[in-house]
Amino acid sequence: MSDSTKVNADLQRERQKCTFNITELTNVLDGGPAMTEERRRQEEVVLKEGIHVEEVPSEYLSHKEKYELAVKKACLLFKLIRRLQEEENTGMENFRAVLGGSLGSAILQDGSPLTLHYVMFIPTLMGQGSVEQQAYWIGRAFNLDIIGTYAQTELGHGTFIRGLETTSTYDPKTKEFVLHSPTLTSYKWWPGGLAHTANYCIVMAQLYSNGQCHGIHPFIVQLRDEETHMPLPGIKIGEIGAKLGMNGTNNGFLGFEQVRIPRAHMLMKNCQILEDGTYVKSPSSKLTYGTMMFVRVVIIKDMCSYMAKAVTIATRYSAVRRQSQPKPDEPEPQILDYLTQQHKLMVSIATVHAFTLSAEWIWDMYNNVTAELEAGDMERLPELHALSCCLKAVTTADAAECVERCRLACGGHGYMLASNLPVTYGLVTAACTYEGENTVLLLQTARYLVKAWQQAAGGDSLPPTVAYLARRSPPWDCSLEGIVRGFELVAASKISLCVANIEKRQKSGLAYEDAWNMTSVQLAQASEAHCRLFVLTSYFEETERRVKNVSPQLREVMLQLVDLYVVYWALERMGDLLRFTSISERDIEKLQQWYEDLLTKLRPNAVGLVDAFDLRDEILHSALGAYDGRVYERLMAEALKSPLNAEPVNRSFHKYLKPFMQGKL
Amino acid sequence: MSDSTKVNADLQRERQKCTFNITELTNVLDGGPAMTEERRRQEEVVLKEGIHVEEVPSEYLSHKEKYELAVKKACLLFKLIRRLQEEENTGMENFRAVLGGSLGSAILQDGSPLTLHYVMFIPTLMGQGSVEQQAYWIGRAFNLDIIGTYAQTELGHGTFIRGLETTSTYDPKTKEFVLHSPTLTSYKWWPGGLAHTANYCIVMAQLYSNGQCHGIHPFIVQLRDEETHMPLPGIKIGEIGAKLGMNGTNNGFLGFEQVRIPRAHMLMKNCQILEDGTYVKSPSSKLTYGTMMFVRVVIIKDMCSYMAKAVTIATRYSAVRRQSQPKPDEPEPQILDYLTQQHKLMVSIATVHAFTLSAEWIWDMYNNVTAELEAGDMERLPELHALSCCLKAVTTADAAECVERCRLACGGHGYMLASNLPVTYGLVTAACTYEGENTVLLLQTARYLVKAWQQAAGGDSLPPTVAYLARRSPPWDCSLEGIVRGFELVAASKISLCVANIEKRQKSGLAYEDAWNMTSVQLAQASEAHCRLFVLTSYFEETERRVKNVSPQLREVMLQLVDLYVVYWALERMGDLLRFTSISERDIEKLQQWYEDLLTKLRPNAVGLVDAFDLRDEILHSALGAYDGRVYERLMAEALKSPLNAEPVNRSFHKYLKPFMQGKL
Repeated sequence: MSDSTKVNADLQRERQKCTFNITELTNVLDGGPAMTEERRRQEEVVLKEGIHVEEVPSEYLSHKEKYELAVKKACLLFKLIRRLQEEENTGMENFRAVLGGSLGSAILQDGSPLTLHYVMFIPTLMGQGSVEQQAYWIGRAFNLDIIGTYAQTELGHGTFIRGLETTSTYDPKTKEFVLHSPTLTSYKWWPGGLAHTANYCIVMAQLYSNGQCHGIHPFIVQLRDEETHMPLPGIKIGEIGAKLGMNGTNNGFLGFEQVRIPRAHMLMKNCQILEDGTYVKSPSSKLTYGTMMFVRVVIIKDMCSYMAKAVTIATRYSAVRRQSQPKPDEPEPQILDYLTQQHKLMVSIATVHAFTLSAEWIWDMYNNVTAELEAGDMERLPELHALSCCLKAVTTADAAECVERCRLACGGHGYMLASNLPVTYGLVTAACTYEGENTVLLLQTARYLVKAWQQAAGGDSLPPTVAYLARRSPPWDCSLEGIVRGFELVAASKISLCVANIEKRQKSGLAYEDAWNMTSVQLAQASEAHCRLFVLTSYFEETERRVKNVSPQLREVMLQLVDLYVVYWALERMGDLLRFTSISERDIEKLQQWYEDLLTKLRPNAVGLVDAFDLRDEILHSALGAYDGRVYERLMAEALKSPLNAEPVNRSFHKYLKPFMQGKL
Repeated sequence: MSDSTKVNADLQRERQKCTFNITELTNVLDGGPAMTEERRRQEEVVLKEGIHVEEVPSEYLSHKEKYELAVKKACLLFKLIRRLQEEENTGMENFRAVLGGSLGSAILQDGSPLTLHYVMFIPTLMGQGSVEQQAYWIGRAFNLDIIGTYAQTELGHGTFIRGLETTSTYDPKTKEFVLHSPTLTSYKWWPGGLAHTANYCIVMAQLYSNGQCHGIHPFIVQLRDEETHMPLPGIKIGEIGAKLGMNGTNNGFLGFEQVRIPRAHMLMKNCQILEDGTYVKSPSSKLTYGTMMFVRVVIIKDMCSYMAKAVTIATRYSAVRRQSQPKPDEPEPQILDYLTQQHKLMVSIATVHAFTLSAEWIWDMYNNVTAELEAGDMERLPELHALSCCLKAVTTADAAECVERCRLACGGHGYMLASNLPVTYGLVTAACTYEGENTVLLLQTARYLVKAWQQAAGGDSLPPTVAYLARRSPPWDCSLEGIVRGFELVAASKISLCVANIEKRQKSGLAYEDAWNMTSVQLAQASEAHCRLFVLTSYFEETERRVKNVSPQLREVMLQLVDLYVVYWALERMGDLLRFTSISERDIEKLQQWYEDLLTKLRPNAVGLVDAFDLRDEILHSALGAYDGRVYERLMAEALKSPLNAEPVNRSFHKYLKPFMQGKL
């Protein structure tokens, strides 16, 4: 109906309005021009293979067909990565984006059944295997002689690892372990790739030897015959069924009926069972924090990719979509001109910036702490752990809300899978639960905060991220620094109130655990306040640092976004600020006006800001969000791909509808 | 592994703890014992036909197969309803629950392609057809000689009806209308059943006659041949593609290439085109409010069903699930014992009560207004309209949040489709967009509130639901009535601030429309505050009224739930209360303690409260939520239904995985 190479005129106008250099911002977000270049090169190399191209879009396939397509794509993708590794003489870590994040999820929209082989099976072998075990197993795993996964969670137990029921009992007579699932709830449940893909598995089980339980340890178990792929005797294995999203990941269940494995199949870097069954303890168990920290930082970065995707789609769509007629003689405005729409989108853009910079901040901290650890200094480990817990909880929850807000901002068309927003939500909301359920994580941070508070009360010095607990805050002032200091007072006051409440309840006769539980709604909120403060601070400070090296045009916009984010959260948490700071009604009205003015100032740069996320059309995978803004043409083109549209009359007419109409059904 | 008739022991204990008579509460929520009995009878009659039973659960089917299954089920279901109508000599309205709500969505989980025939096609014929048109068309539609749908929304236009582009031009020479789609964006898009199911359609189009446009009018258009079901010439028709949910509804697109229909096919009850093309106007256009009001009240009631489903599932699961070990020597507690979990569930239960009673309140008001209307009195129409707009927005948004909160409260297992929580979310979140996008609706209410405020300022008397705008509120007091009065002050203050902001911006030179737009974030919030106040008030007052006739045991629990709901919202909206009332820090701490005490008091009745929603297992359709609480057995049983589990080795192993492992792919 119109020239197919043309960019939508409204979008073109938006791009002309942009006041800053888009590539410059892309570079800042990537961490420098070299990083942008390398990312783009990888995307180009991977996407030109065309693995992501689907004959029939996967949303039209059955659950089983989705899995089969995922296996095909995952094999082709990993084959490609292997070739590139050889060509470029580099390791797997260089291709992280391909395994997860925006590029990976663009190719394997329903998730990959091979991911756990690379992100859990091999790393666990490396982290927990003895030198001999590593020599033997890592080679086989890298060569793909075997494909593995990692099984910890059980049907009846997730977050609480000590409660796992699978047993591994050492038999000194045969020098074997006997793996067993004593109950239905002890069945392993959830591991990706477990159902029909992996033939080996690292199983976490309660270790028994000489009648004693030594807690959870890792064991390598063969699941399937290497030639025929048939499950081995005593192995009860299958798929756990359809899910909200990620139906290509092949999550499985696994039960054992007295399955015997050699003694050498326990991973023994940290703990050992000697031939006679003697248990030799690990020198330190804190060393596994590293992997967990790494995974959590990766999750935060993934949340940034997903939010960037969602807000790019919604913003471009809002520039193209026109609706209603507030002024009788003027054309319908772009919906991006409505302040309520800007309210939904701008904070989403700012959140991507805020979390990107916070993730880098905590990643630096992690690297410092790791260096200290290697020098034997464990002092900052609890602080880092506490921070990573609440950050994982808050970033995943905010990301889920952000993606849904963007989806709903696209009206009915956001409900179409062709928008790619529902699938993105499926990926993001899953992160609220996996790697530590969010409420549980917030309460873990709260435990640390309560201790830190008591330390501060006792006059002890505090680690940097909780040093504010001991500071006296100045009276409210309506500046960025003033707001951040206000949030310090909020977090400190909330923790202080929690401590007082727990103590009061203990005095009234409750056990500490019950007093804690009765206060836990407030504790989770205090933990969230601590996290908000951290994000606001690190976003603010990192931006101040980075804008020193950028052009004045970009600096202005980056600082406007920080302002917007901080003022947005001040308005969102007005109740806290009113309770704990000296903010006045006049200040609030000033903040509200400041916020509305910022939306207006940022409005002309909205499309430029999402263009700077630099997400290729293949990665966005959205009829609403493509660079050319040809929303309606693309929606129609996608609709025509529905297999239902291949025939003018569906067979159900003859089979059901016509007999029904004729009273003959 | 255990006796399959047994109820989970924890659930059994919960039921023994319940302090009130469950059936008594069921009766209160249904509106009396007779209503409960009738509902149960209908459920029994419909479910015993087994139409809901699926050989392979629909989540494993392809998009196309889901549609075919939906056609089959819908035909069987409507055949059954027809039989029952004849047997019981009653109309369609008696089977509303079967068309929508919890029973309907239990049978047709992916939605029904025939629903619009009954809820839009026939009612529009009745409401907009002339007597002759009704006589001809309604008979054909009831007899199922034809199957219809209703096409209003276009690819480029949703909420803004004046912007629709489809044209219907009268040709006096042939006495026909010519329907045409002048652009891609003018294609009809979204109507349920349009794609492959209906053969007739009511099309809303811009009416042109004698060179003049007369706005949007309804036309009956034949889409497909009655015998062969082939699309007629000039009719471009198909399916719009896969969606987040409701993939059985067969949403379609429809374009016209100069399609001619007889003059008699314009629905002419309200407006007419004479043979020579003369347009004869309708006496009043406000009469269509009735249908819209009815639809919105139905939406609120549906939201109650979905929330009741979600919280029943999550509460029963929380009674069965045990996790963690706060006290070293005690067993793992039920997760329902954690205050954070009670915090997520109890307010969800209270919300079902609150919205159920608010829906009845507005339904009564609607019936009164309709009676007044028929007596020619239109005074309360704007008030009713304003209330229905914000209520639709707030109840759908709250319901979506509630269902997701319940899903996340079930941890990883809530992500399984077998929990039925993801599908429920898909149904609920759709309602945030259809029948009026939520932000647009909130701003419609705001327009009314601003006018009412100006009326009050001018000393005019106000209709009941906005009378609070003229009241002076007493100082804060920490009682239920005190909180509700505090919310009156909040809503009034927010509206007042909006009016002041708009005026200030006008004085600074902005046009009214621009001043409105710049204030619209605040206006939407003011509108939400007005709605919260209404829900709190009507829930509080209706409960006070109803508890007069219930047992003391039930009264206590119902009043605790009202307390919980009101205090919950006071804590949620603490910023507003601090800004606009004289609430003190002491009061806040008192409210927090009150809230925590209420959770503890309600805890023993949690399972009893969800049992009282009286949702049969067939309706819950959830492995996590069944009455017997056999969560893990059911999860495993559901998993085994996955077609992937029918074979020990999937064909993709031979086709991709093995060649990949051997380097031969």
